[in-house]
Amino acid sequence: MNVLGYAAYAADAPLAPFRFERRTPRHDDVVIDILYCGVCHTDLHQVRNHRGASRYPIVPGHEVIGRVRSVGPAVTRFKPGDTVGVGCMVDSCRHCVACESGHEQHCATSPTFTYGSTDRHDQTRTFGGYSESIIVSDGFVLRVPEGMDLAGAAPLLCAGITTWAPLRRWQVGPGSRVAVMGLGGLGHMALKLAKGLGADVTLFTRSSGKEADARRLGADRVVISTDAAQMAACAGRFDLIIDTVPYVHALTPYLPTLSFDGTLVLVGYMGALDEQLNTAPLVYGGRAVAGSFIGGVAETQEMLDFCGQHGISSDVEVIRVQQIDEAYERMLKSDVKYRFVIDMSSLKSQELDA
Amino acid sequence: MNVLGYAAYAADAPLAPFRFERRTPRHDDVVIDILYCGVCHTDLHQVRNHRGASRYPIVPGHEVIGRVRSVGPAVTRFKPGDTVGVGCMVDSCRHCVACESGHEQHCATSPTFTYGSTDRHDQTRTFGGYSESIIVSDGFVLRVPEGMDLAGAAPLLCAGITTWAPLRRWQVGPGSRVAVMGLGGLGHMALKLAKGLGADVTLFTRSSGKEADARRLGADRVVISTDAAQMAACAGRFDLIIDTVPYVHALTPYLPTLSFDGTLVLVGYMGALDEQLNTAPLVYGGRAVAGSFIGGVAETQEMLDFCGQHGISSDVEVIRVQQIDEAYERMLKSDVKYRFVIDMSSLKSQELDA
Repeated sequence: MNVLGYAAYAADAPLAPFRFERRTPRHDDVVIDILYCGVCHTDLHQVRNHRGASRYPIVPGHEVIGRVRSVGPAVTRFKPGDTVGVGCMVDSCRHCVACESGHEQHCATSPTFTYGSTDRHDQTRTFGGYSESIIVSDGFVLRVPEGMDLAGAAPLLCAGITTWAPLRRWQVGPGSRVAVMGLGGLGHMALKLAKGLGADVTLFTRSSGKEADARRLGADRVVISTDAAQMAACAGRFDLIIDTVPYVHALTPYLPTLSFDGTLVLVGYMGALDEQLNTAPLVYGGRAVAGSFIGGVAETQEMLDFCGQHGISSDVEVIRVQQIDEAYERMLKSDVKYRFVIDMSSLKSQELDA
Repeated sequence: MNVLGYAAYAADAPLAPFRFERRTPRHDDVVIDILYCGVCHTDLHQVRNHRGASRYPIVPGHEVIGRVRSVGPAVTRFKPGDTVGVGCMVDSCRHCVACESGHEQHCATSPTFTYGSTDRHDQTRTFGGYSESIIVSDGFVLRVPEGMDLAGAAPLLCAGITTWAPLRRWQVGPGSRVAVMGLGGLGHMALKLAKGLGADVTLFTRSSGKEADARRLGADRVVISTDAAQMAACAGRFDLIIDTVPYVHALTPYLPTLSFDGTLVLVGYMGALDEQLNTAPLVYGGRAVAGSFIGGVAETQEMLDFCGQHGISSDVEVIRVQQIDEAYERMLKSDVKYRFVIDMSSLKSQELDA
């Protein structure tokens, strides 16, 4: 199946149109016409080869909202016309301990990621959502609740589930005291979801200009993390801190704000921190520093259903695919409130231009 | 009440006999004649002023086993002749969130520790178990199950509960895969308790000479942590690692051996680690690094009852109180299997000598 997409051909080149073959649909496959695709920091890391393992060309995109065009003979849960989503994964082994417990993101043989992975059946490369259509096994296709804003739903597939999973793992609900570090794509979803779950929600930020926006997004209060007095006033306060900061940063100032048994969970930064971890606030406070990586298929569906019921979606700026390089530059300056989403109909004008 | 004990008078002086006054028993107090007192690394830190906050004289000792001599009029749970224990704490505020949830060690106003603290009612100093008797509010006195070896029971009050609390918090039982780092006072209790709870138990150690002992104490296998091949063979294996290492050490080699959702919990070292924590194995693996600090009163009783039912006690070397400085020197060389316990009847000969 011949498909038009937008691809990175090299780390230092702008993205450009790319025609490629998608596999012939298998018996359990869903063929999806893509309507919207969110733009995640991971796309930028992969396109620019920040982690050194990129293989070009790359068609990025793992926050996909689309409409079912057709389904394979074994597919019973979807039919043509359904509005569906695809997140960071399109397959996994399905029988390891992780897969069988709904944690496909921790599949013992690694999940098949939506782009940049190798299909585990035919060894073809996977290409993501910056394209007109995608073919995904039904076990990794999500139902989008009726009535959702479809552009605003796209970022739920990565930013949403990445912040939802720790909120659920640490059983956040009414009475919980949650803080969020960083107000970007992940941070703004963490505020909305924590508030939706009934928690008392605080935003930690370094800039005083974010208060009004943070409150609109669900924060009950904003704490300036560079203000020692404000930080001291939150000592022992939080059951859970969701740390969405995507670059090297210090954890030490935040640990005393955790309650005993509290956890700071990293979701945005993978790499070495530039401080020596001091274990004293962990031991004496019974506290933890944890990490969390996206989420499983079932909990992604749970999150989408929750968002549908609570009217939650991402705050997005919709762009044309031709604006993607400019969007990446703006993301590097945190100049987006709070997620870019590509309107994939813009690919059609590309075709006319071409 | 005039009491004979053994005290540190200065960081660089040997311990020596010390006569001091214990408070007049209050209505809820239990007066306990001390039979045995375990020797914890904390005693050494306090005596030698390793943390810079010691106030002399110090009567150390917070692993106390004794016999009730008398009880105050409000005490109903104990009577003269009962065999009882006292651990690291002798009081707390009793009404904060931590105290009301059975986590007195995290009392919002700090618990009153068994020695080196200030009594919250009369502002007197607390003196520990290296003495002939102690007076403790009944809410902090533990029942010792019948039939236990009393010298071997003493270390349960600190080394036992310190390793029991994380085993319970992370719900270790049959099917759990637990590893223990370090084979000292805490480590040998972690092996026994994890095995008692039905877990599959592994010891991480740097020295190959500990295998037979580790197996006797409950380890199903021993992994040499400096052997890269042995470490690689445990990738993703453990639900919980109990890190009892009491000095600066690296966590990085151990994190990949945690399963997804697994936790490494520090119980032995409070201070800066000499490495930059890399968050990638935490985030990608959904793993956590946590700390745990002794345990609450109710869970200490639960641990003692469990040990009574399962015939678990500490492996001890019983010493006379006059041997305490020599014992500290041997602890610094890890030359003890696995806990020194002072037979407090040795104080009586002190009195005769004096």
